[in-house]
Amino acid sequence: MARIVQKYGGTSVGDVDRIKNVAARIKANRDAGNELVVVVSARAGVTNELIARAKAVCAMPSEREMDQLLSIGEQETIALTAMALHGIGVEAVSYTGAQAGIFTDTVHTKAKIKTINAKPLIKDLEAGKVIIVAGFQGINDDGQITTLGRGGSDLTAIALAAAIHADKCEIYTDVDGVYTADPRVVKDAKKLQEISYDEMLELASLGSKVMQTRSVEFASKYNVVFEVRSSFNNNPGTIVKQEVAYMEKVVVRGVAVDKDQAKVVVSNIADKPGTAAKVFRALAEANINVDMIVQNVGKDGVANLTFTVPQTETLKAEQTLAPVLKAIGGSVTLDDKIAKLSVVGVGMRTHSGVASTLFSALADAGINLELISTSEIKISVVIAKDKADDAARAAHKAFQLDQLG
Amino acid sequence: MARIVQKYGGTSVGDVDRIKNVAARIKANRDAGNELVVVVSARAGVTNELIARAKAVCAMPSEREMDQLLSIGEQETIALTAMALHGIGVEAVSYTGAQAGIFTDTVHTKAKIKTINAKPLIKDLEAGKVIIVAGFQGINDDGQITTLGRGGSDLTAIALAAAIHADKCEIYTDVDGVYTADPRVVKDAKKLQEISYDEMLELASLGSKVMQTRSVEFASKYNVVFEVRSSFNNNPGTIVKQEVAYMEKVVVRGVAVDKDQAKVVVSNIADKPGTAAKVFRALAEANINVDMIVQNVGKDGVANLTFTVPQTETLKAEQTLAPVLKAIGGSVTLDDKIAKLSVVGVGMRTHSGVASTLFSALADAGINLELISTSEIKISVVIAKDKADDAARAAHKAFQLDQLG
Repeated sequence: MARIVQKYGGTSVGDVDRIKNVAARIKANRDAGNELVVVVSARAGVTNELIARAKAVCAMPSEREMDQLLSIGEQETIALTAMALHGIGVEAVSYTGAQAGIFTDTVHTKAKIKTINAKPLIKDLEAGKVIIVAGFQGINDDGQITTLGRGGSDLTAIALAAAIHADKCEIYTDVDGVYTADPRVVKDAKKLQEISYDEMLELASLGSKVMQTRSVEFASKYNVVFEVRSSFNNNPGTIVKQEVAYMEKVVVRGVAVDKDQAKVVVSNIADKPGTAAKVFRALAEANINVDMIVQNVGKDGVANLTFTVPQTETLKAEQTLAPVLKAIGGSVTLDDKIAKLSVVGVGMRTHSGVASTLFSALADAGINLELISTSEIKISVVIAKDKADDAARAAHKAFQLDQLG
Repeated sequence: MARIVQKYGGTSVGDVDRIKNVAARIKANRDAGNELVVVVSARAGVTNELIARAKAVCAMPSEREMDQLLSIGEQETIALTAMALHGIGVEAVSYTGAQAGIFTDTVHTKAKIKTINAKPLIKDLEAGKVIIVAGFQGINDDGQITTLGRGGSDLTAIALAAAIHADKCEIYTDVDGVYTADPRVVKDAKKLQEISYDEMLELASLGSKVMQTRSVEFASKYNVVFEVRSSFNNNPGTIVKQEVAYMEKVVVRGVAVDKDQAKVVVSNIADKPGTAAKVFRALAEANINVDMIVQNVGKDGVANLTFTVPQTETLKAEQTLAPVLKAIGGSVTLDDKIAKLSVVGVGMRTHSGVASTLFSALADAGINLELISTSEIKISVVIAKDKADDAARAAHKAFQLDQLG
């Protein structure tokens, strides 16, 4: 008997039939003797419908009222899931975020979990009931409903797993697990049996889209081992944890490509202290996410600053920089025909030569590097967008990732 | 400046445009300097949609989970109404039943309000905010969401009006107020300016359909004066209160017709102690609502019992009685081609002759009386259904109700 937290996303509970399917999976698991806490999201599409209705009555809905509104999506799913379980003879009880004792700070639409008072939930769990918890939501000390922002249901599951000392935490999504590369691009990409938090974090932030980074960070902080797997089949998924077997031998565990970035070049600015600071302070104040910064000093005391931003923020970046450059001189050019390719692996901490292997493989494939940045467990390069898939295949092969998994 | 509780039903907030319309009415009232607490129902149709989804996952959904599910209907409306008010520059804040401190007993789907802790609500109200409260719902001491059953939103409004010592309580519906008779049947029916709780109770229970009796009972118990009026125009409605002006002079204030009853005749049962008790105990145990009981003793020591039940419960009544009659003898006949006509008025307490006026008027119209029952402020008769409208017009004229209002 194990104590398990499962999380099913919006696609898995997208309609009445899928909710019944999830109920059947839960029953099988319960019949095997496990204690189960199940976190569910709103039905796919419901949140967008509610947002559309909000925009129809008010151009700029308040975040407090958005939370009152959006939290009903999960509340519908928990009740229907509990009912579907009753329909097949499984004792179950639904919990809203507030009822599950998920206390957050007061920041509406992107609240942080402060504490979980899981006592009532544990009592029901130990009485043999399956517990169905609304993901994505909590309550603050004033009794206001809050929501946790994107990826919030994953966070609910992982935080609950920590709070109730679960043996396992299973995140069910519409993908099978974490792959060494995008299988649609790299034919011999392999599903990883295990991956470390740090690697998962880099892959999540690099656009592999399986999970939001904050959930992985939370899991890492509280050492919650979780498995990413599909709700549409019974294949084993990928286990995410602190220390991964044969970690030392594997240098690179995955290749990620992000095609949603754009490159910004600020040219001909004065090469003196404080110039770069002015540029990035302006971008930070405009809440623009800046990644991969490189500065080249040219001749005649002028410098070029290059960095990447999300494509959706390029116009905002240009508008933000205009007054700054008026003051300090220089000009801006934008390029959204780029992609960022990264190789990730905790093993590279102790191995040299990773950079040269990557750069050689890309050079052999005739791919030019526009920017390079490195961290302890990651090397990222900016390349032409139309070469991104070729580059992923070349890197995957160079690090022999088809041998993994 | 007055402190006003308003309640808008599901039709009044049926879609985004109607919610905006309600917001505009609220703003006009707020701009006039009033303090406003507004209770709203779920959008018309939402509750039925949710019930259909529940039935699709489970044949007999648990009442606890039904409450979790159905309460989201009002939660959607409060958030959208608050947003619509923000959109036109009115400070507003939404409250779920739990947030409004509406504590109930633990009987799911038809909970009773125990206490209201309105302190946080009053604080926001006195800070100048319009308060939007979800009708129909509360919370019990264990933090479980409960719902108040049919007509629950009216009850929320009246209970809140009592709790915050409101100067006025306005119940907005799709009718203009309470009439002396159904205006679709009796052309010169008049809208009443005022009506007493007792009269309203009899009219509500007799099928005038304006409000559920429990809300009127609650108002009577806590002496909450309320007005029933339309949300689609600005006509004054009908004020419901304890003592009504010129009460002594008006003998009958309204004529109500209920066409949804059926007559049950239990014939040839033994005329001895306990026989009738056995019949009605069986019906009570089956939760069948029995009204208008008459017993005739015939010759040879056998009796006939006649009573009315809601038409929807006739089959259930027949099935329930079968084993009883097998034991005590007798047979059952059903007749659903009947209607119940009632005249109501607190004035009849002190006036004799009401019954004879009614019976004469019906006799003159050639209408036969099948059953008669009377209470302090009401006389009811069962007649043929196809004569019901004629009977209503005859009674309305006999008591000169076209002179009222």
